Amino acid sequence: MLLYDQQNAPNPRRVRIFLAEKNLAYDRKQLNIVQGENLSTEFLAINPRGCLPTLVLDDGTVLDESVAICRYVEELYPNPPLMGTDALSKARIEARQRHIEFDGLLPASEVFRNAYPRFQTRGVGGSVGEVNAIPELVARGKTLMSIFFARLEVELHHSQYIVGGEFSIADITALCTLDFATTQARIPFPTNCPALQRWYQTVSARPSAKA
Amino acid sequence: MLLYDQQNAPNPRRVRIFLAEKNLAYDRKQLNIVQGENLSTEFLAINPRGCLPTLVLDDGTVLDESVAICRYVEELYPNPPLMGTDALSKARIEARQRHIEFDGLLPASEVFRNAYPRFQTRGVGGSVGEVNAIPELVARGKTLMSIFFARLEVELHHSQYIVGGEFSIADITALCTLDFATTQARIPFPTNCPALQRWYQTVSARPSAKA
Repeated sequence: MLLYDQQNAPNPRRVRIFLAEKNLAYDRKQLNIVQGENLSTEFLAINPRGCLPTLVLDDGTVLDESVAICRYVEELYPNPPLMGTDALSKARIEARQRHIEFDGLLPASEVFRNAYPRFQTRGVGGSVGEVNAIPELVARGKTLMSIFFARLEVELHHSQYIVGGEFSIADITALCTLDFATTQARIPFPTNCPALQRWYQTVSARPSAKA
Repeated sequence: MLLYDQQNAPNPRRVRIFLAEKNLAYDRKQLNIVQGENLSTEFLAINPRGCLPTLVLDDGTVLDESVAICRYVEELYPNPPLMGTDALSKARIEARQRHIEFDGLLPASEVFRNAYPRFQTRGVGGSVGEVNAIPELVARGKTLMSIFFARLEVELHHSQYIVGGEFSIADITALCTLDFATTQARIPFPTNCPALQRWYQTVSARPSAKA
């Protein structure tokens, strides 16, 4: 299978870490989003939305969404489980992963997209044409990120991983959000968050984090 | 089980339709988001994020996210299947449902939140404190909604439902997005979209659409 990828972008990294945890091999093709390679005629023929990651299976089937790719892999290769093992654990992991997307990854992306000079007319990702950046989203996004970090800190005081004692896709999404926020979106790593720091060191030390 | 609900909001409706398709009974408690009932001390003790829907199981377990609630129900009551039956159908349905959320429900929500006078200092939902509305998001959201409608029209030319020939959670999300956009966010139903119109009439005629 072939993963259309960008090394620095958070959603492709979520899939790479997931695949590494499953110990699966695949080919990769890097597309540079800043240079608009995801909007080329060639790539839009594969994924009309122009978003990364996109996975092309060996039979040509295209999976064009990060969590859907993880779901496909989880169903075929259930061990180690990363999306829960029964109704309640599946629901809890999905809930937290979606909270992290909405409360963290989305505002971090808005800070990055709407502050980055090369995206002044690409304020929204993918093949939606010219959409102007909205500078107010940068301040809003930073406010929301401080709330996101504070909530994570409280939760991780009582929990080894995002959902209880098992590493899951929710940890992958949180790790990618945190690294994206602090490196690409230039939001400082929060101070006075010892539980978050402890969790971050633990998940960053997994071999998959280098994927 | 008890569903904390708001009749007019799109995410609670997604869960109500899902539960109706599964023919499951439950109690409901209405909270008025405009009046801030979702931010009361009482409700924040149940769901600190202050978001609806929230489902409380009979043993007191709280599920606080719409798709996670659906996942829990799907796992316990797999028939009729609404989230796919094998790895590929599960991935395809998840991909489309998430596209619809990101490309449709999110911009429609931004149009509504950032235009509605009662939400001038609640530009983001849930318990995040005062966040000013950003009027530019209204125009951006309308632009994105026109792209969303146009893409749906193309897809539904070749497909009975959002994903092939079977009704799924992706149809539920699309229906709730469309009704929310056209009634609450006051974005006109798109003209010259016969396939979308045909699909809309079909899914709106299901008994679950009244849930």
